[in-house]
Amino acid sequence: MIFEMVRTEGLAHYSYFIGSEGKGAVIDPRRDIGVYLQIAEQNDLRITHVFETHRNEDYVIGSTELMEATDAEVYHGAGLDFGYGEDVKEGDRSTIGDLELEVLETPGHTDESISLVLRDKSVSNTPLMVFTGDALFAGDVGRTDLYGLEERERMAANLYHSLHDKILKLDDGVILCPAHGQGSVCGGEISNQVFTTIGYQRKNNHMLKLEKQEFLKVKIEEKMYRPPYFRKMEVYNKDGAPLTDRYGHLKALSKEELKDMDDLQLLDVRGPLCFSSAHIPGSLNIWEGGLPHFAGWFLDHEKPIVLIGDVSNEESYKHLIRLGYDNLVGYLSNALHTWHTAGEKLGQVEVWSVHHLHNNIDDDFFLIDVRDIKGFNKGRIKGAHHIYAGEIKKHLEEVPDGKKLVVYCDSGYKTSVVASILKKHGYDDVVNVMGGMDAWKNAGYTTVG
Amino acid sequence: MIFEMVRTEGLAHYSYFIGSEGKGAVIDPRRDIGVYLQIAEQNDLRITHVFETHRNEDYVIGSTELMEATDAEVYHGAGLDFGYGEDVKEGDRSTIGDLELEVLETPGHTDESISLVLRDKSVSNTPLMVFTGDALFAGDVGRTDLYGLEERERMAANLYHSLHDKILKLDDGVILCPAHGQGSVCGGEISNQVFTTIGYQRKNNHMLKLEKQEFLKVKIEEKMYRPPYFRKMEVYNKDGAPLTDRYGHLKALSKEELKDMDDLQLLDVRGPLCFSSAHIPGSLNIWEGGLPHFAGWFLDHEKPIVLIGDVSNEESYKHLIRLGYDNLVGYLSNALHTWHTAGEKLGQVEVWSVHHLHNNIDDDFFLIDVRDIKGFNKGRIKGAHHIYAGEIKKHLEEVPDGKKLVVYCDSGYKTSVVASILKKHGYDDVVNVMGGMDAWKNAGYTTVG
Amino acid sequence: MIFEMVRTEGLAHYSYFIGSEGKGAVIDPRRDIGVYLQIAEQNDLRITHVFETHRNEDYVIGSTELMEATDAEVYHGAGLDFGYGEDVKEGDRSTIGDLELEVLETPGHTDESISLVLRDKSVSNTPLMVFTGDALFAGDVGRTDLYGLEERERMAANLYHSLHDKILKLDDGVILCPAHGQGSVCGGEISNQVFTTIGYQRKNNHMLKLEKQEFLKVKIEEKMYRPPYFRKMEVYNKDGAPLTDRYGHLKALSKEELKDMDDLQLLDVRGPLCFSSAHIPGSLNIWEGGLPHFAGWFLDHEKPIVLIGDVSNEESYKHLIRLGYDNLVGYLSNALHTWHTAGEKLGQVEVWSVHHLHNNIDDDFFLIDVRDIKGFNKGRIKGAHHIYAGEIKKHLEEVPDGKKLVVYCDSGYKTSVVASILKKHGYDDVVNVMGGMDAWKNAGYTTVG
Amino acid sequence: MIFEMVRTEGLAHYSYFIGSEGKGAVIDPRRDIGVYLQIAEQNDLRITHVFETHRNEDYVIGSTELMEATDAEVYHGAGLDFGYGEDVKEGDRSTIGDLELEVLETPGHTDESISLVLRDKSVSNTPLMVFTGDALFAGDVGRTDLYGLEERERMAANLYHSLHDKILKLDDGVILCPAHGQGSVCGGEISNQVFTTIGYQRKNNHMLKLEKQEFLKVKIEEKMYRPPYFRKMEVYNKDGAPLTDRYGHLKALSKEELKDMDDLQLLDVRGPLCFSSAHIPGSLNIWEGGLPHFAGWFLDHEKPIVLIGDVSNEESYKHLIRLGYDNLVGYLSNALHTWHTAGEKLGQVEVWSVHHLHNNIDDDFFLIDVRDIKGFNKGRIKGAHHIYAGEIKKHLEEVPDGKKLVVYCDSGYKTSVVASILKKHGYDDVVNVMGGMDAWKNAGYTTVG
Repeated sequence: MIFEMVRTEGLAHYSYFIGSEGKGAVIDPRRDIGVYLQIAEQNDLRITHVFETHRNEDYVIGSTELMEATDAEVYHGAGLDFGYGEDVKEGDRSTIGDLELEVLETPGHTDESISLVLRDKSVSNTPLMVFTGDALFAGDVGRTDLYGLEERERMAANLYHSLHDKILKLDDGVILCPAHGQGSVCGGEISNQVFTTIGYQRKNNHMLKLEKQEFLKVKIEEKMYRPPYFRKMEVYNKDGAPLTDRYGHLKALSKEELKDMDDLQLLDVRGPLCFSSAHIPGSLNIWEGGLPHFAGWFLDHEKPIVLIGDVSNEESYKHLIRLGYDNLVGYLSNALHTWHTAGEKLGQVEVWSVHHLHNNIDDDFFLIDVRDIKGFNKGRIKGAHHIYAGEIKKHLEEVPDGKKLVVYCDSGYKTSVVASILKKHGYDDVVNVMGGMDAWKNAGYTTVG
Repeated sequence: MIFEMVRTEGLAHYSYFIGSEGKGAVIDPRRDIGVYLQIAEQNDLRITHVFETHRNEDYVIGSTELMEATDAEVYHGAGLDFGYGEDVKEGDRSTIGDLELEVLETPGHTDESISLVLRDKSVSNTPLMVFTGDALFAGDVGRTDLYGLEERERMAANLYHSLHDKILKLDDGVILCPAHGQGSVCGGEISNQVFTTIGYQRKNNHMLKLEKQEFLKVKIEEKMYRPPYFRKMEVYNKDGAPLTDRYGHLKALSKEELKDMDDLQLLDVRGPLCFSSAHIPGSLNIWEGGLPHFAGWFLDHEKPIVLIGDVSNEESYKHLIRLGYDNLVGYLSNALHTWHTAGEKLGQVEVWSVHHLHNNIDDDFFLIDVRDIKGFNKGRIKGAHHIYAGEIKKHLEEVPDGKKLVVYCDSGYKTSVVASILKKHGYDDVVNVMGGMDAWKNAGYTTVG
Repeated sequence: MIFEMVRTEGLAHYSYFIGSEGKGAVIDPRRDIGVYLQIAEQNDLRITHVFETHRNEDYVIGSTELMEATDAEVYHGAGLDFGYGEDVKEGDRSTIGDLELEVLETPGHTDESISLVLRDKSVSNTPLMVFTGDALFAGDVGRTDLYGLEERERMAANLYHSLHDKILKLDDGVILCPAHGQGSVCGGEISNQVFTTIGYQRKNNHMLKLEKQEFLKVKIEEKMYRPPYFRKMEVYNKDGAPLTDRYGHLKALSKEELKDMDDLQLLDVRGPLCFSSAHIPGSLNIWEGGLPHFAGWFLDHEKPIVLIGDVSNEESYKHLIRLGYDNLVGYLSNALHTWHTAGEKLGQVEVWSVHHLHNNIDDDFFLIDVRDIKGFNKGRIKGAHHIYAGEIKKHLEEVPDGKKLVVYCDSGYKTSVVASILKKHGYDDVVNVMGGMDAWKNAGYTTVG
Repeated sequence: MIFEMVRTEGLAHYSYFIGSEGKGAVIDPRRDIGVYLQIAEQNDLRITHVFETHRNEDYVIGSTELMEATDAEVYHGAGLDFGYGEDVKEGDRSTIGDLELEVLETPGHTDESISLVLRDKSVSNTPLMVFTGDALFAGDVGRTDLYGLEERERMAANLYHSLHDKILKLDDGVILCPAHGQGSVCGGEISNQVFTTIGYQRKNNHMLKLEKQEFLKVKIEEKMYRPPYFRKMEVYNKDGAPLTDRYGHLKALSKEELKDMDDLQLLDVRGPLCFSSAHIPGSLNIWEGGLPHFAGWFLDHEKPIVLIGDVSNEESYKHLIRLGYDNLVGYLSNALHTWHTAGEKLGQVEVWSVHHLHNNIDDDFFLIDVRDIKGFNKGRIKGAHHIYAGEIKKHLEEVPDGKKLVVYCDSGYKTSVVASILKKHGYDDVVNVMGGMDAWKNAGYTTVG
């Protein structure tokens, strides 16, 4: 039996490759499918099956790519009218060599969500693993808010049923293979464990210990952020995503070409320190590792995107196409060096240490906490106004004109995203508090809240 | 929590890297330690602990290499007087960031064998994984014959106790992380499952279902092969292995240099088909993938080894140093092409299909079955004489002079090892039955036994 | 100034990447263009120009791929009505940053052949390099027979003029950058020097020392082989080649699927020794490194090709698509192992050493020399009949039925190609003389002729 | 003939691999010799010869490493008493397969400098290439100041003789293979051409056109910088350098470990923008690509070095060991993120655009131009005081206390090196002018001088 977990950083997305006797199946493939083709080649397997545990909303699924590259058939739950692939229902079984995958219908995160129970028939009929998609994670369960407020209770009840009457009916010794790990937008409290079991979760997952009514209450009251790009993903993953560019080759653009483009989205993927020192006025700053989380809040899928970076663009490219950003047209050749030495205007963001903030806390500035609301509620710097980083554009009217804006987050990264948005919208005097709340606390300064 | 399994093909050896909060530990490292250093670098960790579940006999452990490359301390069971590292005892606990490893003394395979129970304290005190070394595998348990016949019962009883009173006391939901997978010489019936759990094994591992007396009987009667290189490994792994060559760079040797070497071991790592067509007289044939299994039966650790191959030598080099063969001096430049075109003498082995064998079964030849004894006992070609491939040199007196020797195994690989040994010892007329017993059966021919 | 030579093994094809100030040009790109995109990225350049020194006949040029992947414009000589790109004429100059390429019309190999003189204007107006395509090589000049017998004199006269009145007018210090190196089918006597100069060639290239009449005589009498795939290349390179498969992913096929295919071309890319020992009956043997030379003689561009090999298929795939074989549908999963162990029928070719041939030279067999005619004329084994390997199918009527066929070449590789063709055509008793003429001579045996 | 040029970025160092008939030679190897071993393996060659064109002073030569990894013998000029290898003299010839290298004694850069003329005897006796070490470059000649002021005239006269009576006696068509390209500290005006010829240089190299007296005058007056690490290189390359660390594995160090180290050299290899925003007080900033140029000015070879970066440390490691810095003990785990979030103190450097400088030029600050003196003399910003970046520590007494220090260079990189030194020496108020003189000019502002 071949078993490979493929982890996609940032999205905290887990996909799985299983194989036996010359055949292979991929569960929830990502859009850049090279990794699966490579596993197939190394193990002399042909990919014949692709399973989607549900219509994903946080990334573009790689099913259409795998269909094009192999003869694989795609399977997903019957509860949604997909534009491609085949439906499977409770109890359906697929055979991949010695392996068998049995479908459990496990709605709750979405209506058509399924889990897949794996048996290795060369050994026995005992379930070995279960692929639960976004129903059950290590330490948490899936979100149930995607169909809107009014559907929340129904979804939560469905999920409770799926967990307790389906997944937890499995033995303690069954290995749990969820679609996401810690850091995903699909579950707030996922723990940092790559491998776990039904038994371990039964003991340690707080959501599984709740009575039904408590569970419903928690899920109905749960507030999770929902970036606008989800809508695009939902369409792509329902209808079948377009194929990616054949070469994935980014063009090196000159400074002049940048200036000639209309409606350009300048995306600066450097870290916040570099961006603060000097940047191209009007550019959006999302550090490379933050693209999976923040690109989907701020980038449009149509207007041309140009990368500004200082290392290879390959990683950024991958992050973006996973979110459906096929409108990346190139990168600034020789990066910011070109810009500076040309004598162009520079944008800047002031950087403060927490000590500086502490020592000047009584000055007249507007302090913004851009962490998520949970963090803010747990403890914040006195006087801070809360706006979540991803939602800054919706809340600009809360930001006063003509004042120094001092922005902090957990550590200084999200702050820089916000700072770049504020600068774009005409706020000139923005300060990034380096080290953020982590530094503030470690320096021994007090919080309120 | 960082968790990476490192699989070493051929040896079917599993080592593990765990890490948390900037610290990492390796359990049962292999000798080519680059992979661990790389995981450490990718995850920004420092390797601080190395654990040996037992004094291994089938490969050179990488502990001395890791001690040299990092500041790691090495830990092993107290039941053996190691020349390096520190002893740990039942109940000892080591902390690696949020992770804790607790020692279970689990003798049986060897006296100093330990298992390590992993807890992720950031989540709870529930055991998450157990590293069992050669005590418990997926589908089998460790061999208990290494201390000799007279110790067998004691070792088996110890193992029974270790399994039932220690390891199986753990919950079903604990993930099992053994030191070997299918194909290892350390367990005969290991199943082909990379990940499994205590619960799954409790249900499906036939050795765990036996009553103590049955268990002892099976283990005492169990016959497993024991290649002579085990003795070297035992010394290396007790005293601390010498460091490998600094560069791992093999010299390209000319035909003339080969001829000038005394006591040369010519090791032809090509497949059996190539070897059969033409080879350098006197060379030993072990196909590259077979080195972990057969090099240790036939190669001396002192006399110079020269590789004859037709692809990169890197893989062969790795296989050999893992078995302590630091006496690899180079490879024949431009491989056999050099030899042929120089007009040198060629060795050859005849190749028969099973059909040819079947059609000529009444001819006057000596038929040798070189599979392991279990296979032979289950069914063989009528008239076959059994000598296990690894033990061919000990049984040469059973092989008649002056007769055509027709050799078969499972598929035609081991046969070629044997054929090369027979040729070296003066038997000229050797036939390799391509496809072996697999082909014989698939062709519908009958077996006896 | 960026300068990179990209060498394609087997085809002995040289392409060149030059760049300056953010812009890059590729001269005679191959079809798998990844290497150029990578150079562009590493040097932060955009590929803006592609130059074709002539309509190539021995491989598919990568121009259409580069047009699709970049914004590059393609330029070629005006003497042919291409289906894409733009024409350039004598004296036309293109600017790539500080670099300038000037066109010299240098017909002879083809009518529209051009050479390109490179100047680095940041240093001076002195020519630094010249890209001569198939006009001038290290040690030889281009072939002039591609337009047929009746055009040969005209082409040779054109080439003489191009060489003496154009290229050799350049200074001795100009670096020569031809489109091919040693081993190409486009020039018979190309020497094994990757870098050379006009001055070095003026002194050492025997073709440049001939008077015009001598030159014409040599070129008119020159006999070079012309594989049938040239016709396909000529069409592709005139009209614009179709784009290659998006993924380049080969399917692993089962034995059963192979048997179900009609008109299948089974291509065994293992070396001759393996092939001789056992192969699938009916398969064509071309060792991997020999694909650039022999695939084009024997493979059809329409019927499905399936690879039989024992290593990665990637190299074979690349070789084949460079020759326009887009009809590769997959490879036999687990290679020949599958076949043997299934108990299928095996094909075999006998292998002889030269000593065996010498000792049995008086036996009744038909001896075939499959080297090129030049080799045959210089010296052969007594009694040998000449058929060039590539042309074996055209000359089958010269091969007697019912006789043992003993085949030799230079070393034993080409022989195996021929042996596989003979077997396919019903000749059962075929012998490959390992080591070939090289071994024969090195063994001290005599030749005639 | 195998010919590979190995370029080492930063040092602008060229080494060469030549090979033929199973043997290979390396000319002027760098210390990280993996690249040569790889070429040898790919071409099935054994490295038998290493040539040093002279005792290098700008990097550690890889000869001792290659001696350890292979059986190669090392050869160098007879004019220096080396602690290893063998001497060669004018006219000595070495054979590597078909290739022959003939020694020309070409003193001037150093007394024992040699050039090597390559002939490919398989073609003719005509010289094909010449390896000139630091005697002749593309566009310039070697520096002659290394033996001190009083030896300068003698060295220059020697060089003139070596060039005109030895190297330029070769034909125009000989390819020139020097030891350095553009950007090396060994020649000030080397042009950006990777390949060139004797003929092209004869026409275009201004130094070759000078009469002897002019030549001597230019060379005697030539002022080149000489970083202090040269002395260490001279010792290493005369006596034989120690072998590098066996693993090249850097330890991840915690913040606490850093604080515990005495005499620590904190080396921040991030770009100037990041460094300016926030850095660890007391750290030296040399951006990664600048290490070959500036590490040797400021780093001690004994005190422990710890890297502060934000990407892989591999590149920095290589740069440093090439300069003999074997005292690199590790890197700060998780880089500056650790530092910031811990609430530690941050160092900062103010960043100005050229526009800001221009608009505030009348303010009371001290303006420092840290470019090389040639640049300063050609044109500078009014009021600038000159101190070359590499020599800043020697000239600190010229820097006033208590004033804002505004530093500029060509583009903003060297400035940051200087800024970090100034901060370390107690100057608090330092400004880096981003874009430097390039930006100043491109913005249209005037210069003086």
